[in-house]
Parts: sequence; structure tokens; C-alpha cells
Amino acid sequence: MRFILPEIRELIASKKKRTIKKVASYFEPADIAEIWLELKTDEQLMLFNALETRFAADIFELLNEEEMIELLHSLSLVRKKEIINEMSPDDRTDLFAMLPEAETSKLIPLLDEDEQIRARELLAYKENTAGGLMTTDLITVSVNEKTGFVMRELRAKAKEIDFIENIYVVDKVNRLQGIIPLKDLLTATPQRKVSTVMDTHFISVTLDMDQEEIARLFSKYDETALPVLDKVGRIKGVITVDDVIDVIHEEASEDIYHFGAAGVTDEYLAANPVHVAQKRVIWLIILALAGFISGSVLEHYSFLLSSIVTLSFFIPILMNTSGSAGTQAATVVVRGLATGEIKIRDIWKVIKKEFFIGILMGIIAGGITALRAIILNGDFMLGVTVAIAMIAAIIIATSLGGILPILFKKLGVDPALMSGPLIATILDTTTLLIYFNVTIWLLYRL
Amino acid sequence: MRFILPEIRELIASKKKRTIKKVASYFEPADIAEIWLELKTDEQLMLFNALETRFAADIFELLNEEEMIELLHSLSLVRKKEIINEMSPDDRTDLFAMLPEAETSKLIPLLDEDEQIRARELLAYKENTAGGLMTTDLITVSVNEKTGFVMRELRAKAKEIDFIENIYVVDKVNRLQGIIPLKDLLTATPQRKVSTVMDTHFISVTLDMDQEEIARLFSKYDETALPVLDKVGRIKGVITVDDVIDVIHEEASEDIYHFGAAGVTDEYLAANPVHVAQKRVIWLIILALAGFISGSVLEHYSFLLSSIVTLSFFIPILMNTSGSAGTQAATVVVRGLATGEIKIRDIWKVIKKEFFIGILMGIIAGGITALRAIILNGDFMLGVTVAIAMIAAIIIATSLGGILPILFKKLGVDPALMSGPLIATILDTTTLLIYFNVTIWLLYRL
Repeated sequence: MRFILPEIRELIASKKKRTIKKVASYFEPADIAEIWLELKTDEQLMLFNALETRFAADIFELLNEEEMIELLHSLSLVRKKEIINEMSPDDRTDLFAMLPEAETSKLIPLLDEDEQIRARELLAYKENTAGGLMTTDLITVSVNEKTGFVMRELRAKAKEIDFIENIYVVDKVNRLQGIIPLKDLLTATPQRKVSTVMDTHFISVTLDMDQEEIARLFSKYDETALPVLDKVGRIKGVITVDDVIDVIHEEASEDIYHFGAAGVTDEYLAANPVHVAQKRVIWLIILALAGFISGSVLEHYSFLLSSIVTLSFFIPILMNTSGSAGTQAATVVVRGLATGEIKIRDIWKVIKKEFFIGILMGIIAGGITALRAIILNGDFMLGVTVAIAMIAAIIIATSLGGILPILFKKLGVDPALMSGPLIATILDTTTLLIYFNVTIWLLYRL
Repeated sequence: MRFILPEIRELIASKKKRTIKKVASYFEPADIAEIWLELKTDEQLMLFNALETRFAADIFELLNEEEMIELLHSLSLVRKKEIINEMSPDDRTDLFAMLPEAETSKLIPLLDEDEQIRARELLAYKENTAGGLMTTDLITVSVNEKTGFVMRELRAKAKEIDFIENIYVVDKVNRLQGIIPLKDLLTATPQRKVSTVMDTHFISVTLDMDQEEIARLFSKYDETALPVLDKVGRIKGVITVDDVIDVIHEEASEDIYHFGAAGVTDEYLAANPVHVAQKRVIWLIILALAGFISGSVLEHYSFLLSSIVTLSFFIPILMNTSGSAGTQAATVVVRGLATGEIKIRDIWKVIKKEFFIGILMGIIAGGITALRAIILNGDFMLGVTVAIAMIAAIIIATSLGGILPILFKKLGVDPALMSGPLIATILDTTTLLIYFNVTIWLLYRL
């Protein structure tokens, strides 16, 4: 949608507020947010101030952290007030949470009175929990009402409420008693009591539930919205499936970054390279130190290498193939643990499967490597040595690749931290040990 | 939710159809689907046949491929008919697509007449496109109607229609003219023409759009549903955000499997290990063959290794550290390309950033390794050699790790196929070349 930039620019250049307001509304807020950085600061302000408040707030919510804060600081007090009152409560909470406390406490008094209480309450929840994700914009009705009344309420409030697909039925102290999907409300006769229409067995989440767990519930139960309850069952808000999409993206990214030993980076292109290097170098140092062990193994067996130099030619391929085989196994198991397909109790199934896979792959990779040794180096015994070492190394590789992430999970550590590079580093050592011992064994035996 | 198993078992053991029907409905379909495999075949049938059709169909849709087909085959013709008529059109299409054609053509005639036409039409679309994802259960109204009429239509149809959050306004030949969110319909006066209420600038997708692209549109525009149009703009169906959640999961899994060089596996625990090994071994062979190159490099420079055996002690750590640094860079770039943060045109930004990161990390890793050489091996010149080689190797590693996925994307290949193990294999060769050449250069110079 890059081509909208010249159009928007031209529009702003007209400097006619009314034209800007009208024409800009034909674009999607997300498209305008996407080109935001390409506009000059005065263009941004001209545009933003000309727009209808609802539309401006929609764009504002879609900006990234830095763009948001910069724009906020250049707005007039009146415009600031308009925008933060118009924002949806969950996005507003995210904004308040990212600003310094002193600034947030100046912004909150700009809100309408009931919103102020709400904002303070929402700010108390952690960002990655249900409390931090939920919106409080929903419709609750008393369990004693009739559906006709609810329908009238709904018609009156629909415009200002974010989420209307479910009506939440509560008792006197706001404890959730049941849920009426809008669909059922529409088809119910107006005289029916809500208690006879509502669905009383519903899934809910608690205020402090972690976002990853929440995303899993959404996937599993195929729900479009889940109510958030406090400890005594009072409804505090609702989480909608579109909020969960961002969570799923975030969690997948986190897993991928961990598995690549890359540390977690929110933004890459905009980030300071020193910052990125810092996150990665910690892992690199850990891996380098672990790599010293394989160096010491090599040193320990150097008498073999100096007497038979050909042995060393096969070190890279052995290390590389076992490292790859281990990474393959770990990839599947780490992902399976993340999606919930694999559970800790499946460890024996995983070991058996990976052991068997290791045998199959080991025979193939060992065979290929043996052929190379026999044909190119003309050394049959070397071929046998390399083949046996390869088979053993790959069986260990797939088995460890499968087991270690599960052990991490068992210990309460993110299994993705058993990263590809870490597995490969661990396997370097086991592979070298296997290789040298197979060599010695064959030399002394035969 | 494993603890529901004994309860369900006991319930089935009662053999009272009416009790089973009533009590089972207190459970969530997803929870029953989760324990499905733990039930014996006759228990499954007893339970499934006792349940209300709507509830049974909900469970059926949540089963995995094998469970679904097995259950289907053991149902009576009458029950089969009930269930497939009750299924939502998109899930039904998925079922038909996975069955042999001969079986599908026997099942379709069991559907109600209008559903038959629909089913045949849906089957024609590819599974991973908008046509394959969409549901056709939606409400369309003519652009000439009044909102009062639409409201009555909605009340009449709400029960049987899956998706009611938007009303789609069409012209005489079913071309989409605008969308009325239910919220706006509820608050509009009944005399208004729909053409004055509807939103005429909406986002839509085409029948053949790929699911990955669709998921991106949902994330970007924060929509809960997108209409699917054919080439001339006629509305064919709607995709809802909950269908997209599965797509996001699938796409993330695919990226992770590719990046781990593990091949794509739908299911792991249930899969045949020979099958899994087949998928992985192809990659392993490619990597092993690529690994021969590093072996040949080693062979070519073997005169160095036989004269200075200590040199070989540092081969694992050099290969390992550069491989890890390359994987880190590739991880971030592959994920950035997948989420859309990084685009092909950003290649220069990536190169500059990774080059600089490489210098920083190289100095640190090189320093540590040099210290090992100087302290443990007491060889200052070896320390200098290793440090220079490490710095150069890591700069190449981070730069290539950043560039190669972008080149893959540019060539139209999935960037995630530039996997961690592949990057590591490529870098093994560059690292060895750098190491030996630095050694020779320093030996002859000093």
C-alpha cells in the first residue's frame, strides 16, 4: 500500500482541513499508520489534527511505540484529551504503561470520570496477563431482566460499546451467571427472562492468567471471546480473538528467537545494532565456552590425529551431520511442546521414536560418508570406522535432540531455549568422543 | 482436562442414551474431542450416537483426520447424514477433501439439495486459499431494502447462520456493494435504506488468495471477518478470524520446521517414524554432501594440520561459533521476513547492521578464544591467529546469515528453507578457509 503516500502527501499539502478530513476517511487507518514514518512531522500533525476523532484514534492505536509517544507529545491538550478518551480501554492501558509514571498521572485526569477509575484499575494488571489484554467495554445485564429489556439496552448502547457479540448476565454483585450470544438474543421472544436464555456453562479466564495459556484456550475451544473473572467470579472484562492474534504472533516469534539463540528482539530494523549484539553475544559466549569442551576432547585425542591425519578430514562432516540431526529432532519437539501436541509425559514415546529415526538416518548418512572414505581416500577400514561413528553419533543426536527440550520443560525452563546452536554444541562433544573411541576400538581390535 | 475421562467412561457405561445425551452436554466439545482416542471404539460409538446432533457435529469437527475418518466409517447411514448436514460448510469441505473421491461422491448426495451444490462448489477451491477457508453461511441483502426488513430477516435466520456480525449488501447479480456491521444495524431506524447505512469502503479478499496473505491482512487491519469475492466482485463467502488462528499456527509451525531443516510434519506423535525419517533424511543428505566441501578444505590444508597439530584443537570452536552467529542472524531475518517487518528492499540495511554486529561479536568471541590459546596452550602467535580468524569468520557469518534468507525470498523460495543447519554447513567451509589462510598469511609474514 506504499502508493498511497503521494496521494496523502498531496492531500496534506492542500492545507484544507475539511478536504483532508473527508478524503482521508476513504483510506484504511492501518494503511495510513503504515506510511506514518514516511511523513514529515508537520505533515503528520496537519493530517492528524484534521481527522475525525474516531478515525484519528484508530490510526493512533496502530502506530508503534515510538511513533505514538512522539505524536502524543506534539498534540495540543484538547486534542490529547479527545484522543485518549476515544481510545479503546486496552490500547489506552498499553499506552499508559509505556509512558513514564509522571506523564501517565497527568494524562489520566483528562479522561471522563468513570474512565479514570477504569484506567487506574486496568493499569494495575500485568501486560501479559488476562487483565492486561482485556477490554472492559462490554454489556452486562442483571439475571432478573427480560430479553426485551436487554435488546433495548443493546440498541441504546451498541454505538459506544466495543464488544456486543455476547451479553453477560450477572447477579447483584456482578458475578457472571451466564452468557447470551447475540444470535440467541435476536431470536428470543421479548418476554423471556434472561435466565432461561443464557448459556450457563461457559469457559472463562482469570485476571492473572498468562497470555500464552489464554491463546491456547482460544485455539482449543474455537471461541471468539472469553470473559475475564476475578477470584470470586465477578466479570472484569472480555478478551476477544483479535487480541489473541497478536499474542500468537508474539509467542511464535519468541519461540523462534529462542530456538535460534538470538535473544528476543522486539524490532530489528529500528533497533540499535549494539543492543542487538549484546543480546546475541551472551548466547555466543555460552556456546563458545561450551565449545571449549569439544576442543579439549580433540586435544586429548591429538595423538590419534597426528598419527592418522586423514581422521581429521571427517571431523567437520561428523559434527555437522549429527548437529543437524539433533536440531531436526529438537525443532519438532520444541514446536510440539509449544502447540501442546507433545506433553512431558510423552517423553518415552519421543525417545523410542527418535532412537529409531536415528538408526535409519544414521545408516544412510554413515553409508554415504563411508563411500567417500573408501572411494576418495581408498581406505576401507577408515570407511568402516566413519560409518560406525556416524550411526552412533546420529542416534545420540536425535535422541538427545528429542529429550533435552522435554527436560527443560520439566524443569520449568522454556524448551525453546534448548536452541539449535546449543544442541549442535553439545553434540559436537559427544560426536568427537564417539569418533575417537570407535577408532581406538577398531585399531586395537583388528 | 484429562480428569473428565473417568466421568465420561462411567456415563457411557450406564448405557442410558437419555442420560448420556443430557450429562455429556455439560462438557465442552473440545474437551471430549481431546480424550477421544482414550475411549474404546464401542465407547466412542455409544457416546457419539447418544448425543444431540449439533453437539455431536461440534465434537466431530474437532477430531483429527484419522479419528474423524474412523468414526465416520462406523456410523449408520442415517447418523452420517445427520452429522454431515449439521457440519459447518468449511469443515465439511475439509472432510470431503481428505476422503477418497469415490467416498466423497457417495456422501454428497446425503446432503440437503442446496447444500449439495454448495459442497461441490467449495470442493473446487484449493485448501490453502480463501475459497478453501471461507464459510458460505452468511447474510446478504439487496441494496434496495430497508434496515427494518434486514432486521426481520436477521431474526428469522440468525439460528441457522454461522456468521451474523456483518450483513453484506449486494446488487442484483450478487456483487458486494457494502457492509453493515450488526452494531450499526441495531441502532439504525427501521425506515432507513440499507444503502445509507452500509460502509462502502471495505477490505475484501479474492477466492484464490493464499492463506498466509489472508492472515497478514487480518493482523494488519484488525478485522474480525473479511468477505471473499470472485473476479467480478460477487460475494462467495466470508472468512472469520478464528479460522485464521489455525492458519497463523500452521504457518508459524511450517516456518519453524523449515528453519530446523526438519521437513513439514503434520503430526509427530501419531506419525510413522519411517515417514518422519524420510522427510528429515533428504535434508540430512543435502547437508552431508555440502559438508563434504568442508572436509575437502580440511584435506587440502592437511599439511598445516600435520605440521602444527594444535591448530586442529580450534577447529570445532571456530566452526561452532561462526555457525551459531550465522544462525542467530538468519533467525531474526527469517522471522522478520515472515511477519513482514523486513522486506526485500531492506537488504542493505540488514547487511550494514549484521556486518557491524559481526565486528562486535567477533571481537568478543575472538578475544575469549585467544585467551584460551595463550593461557592453556602457551602460544601467543596461535592466540593472534585464532582471534583474527574468529573475527573474520563471525563477520562473514552474521552477514551471510542476514543476506541469504533475503536472497531466497527474492528468488521466490521460502526464506525459512535457508535453515539453521544449512547456514551452519555453508559457514563451516568459509570458516575453515579463513582459518587456514590467516594461519598461512601470519606464518609467512612474521
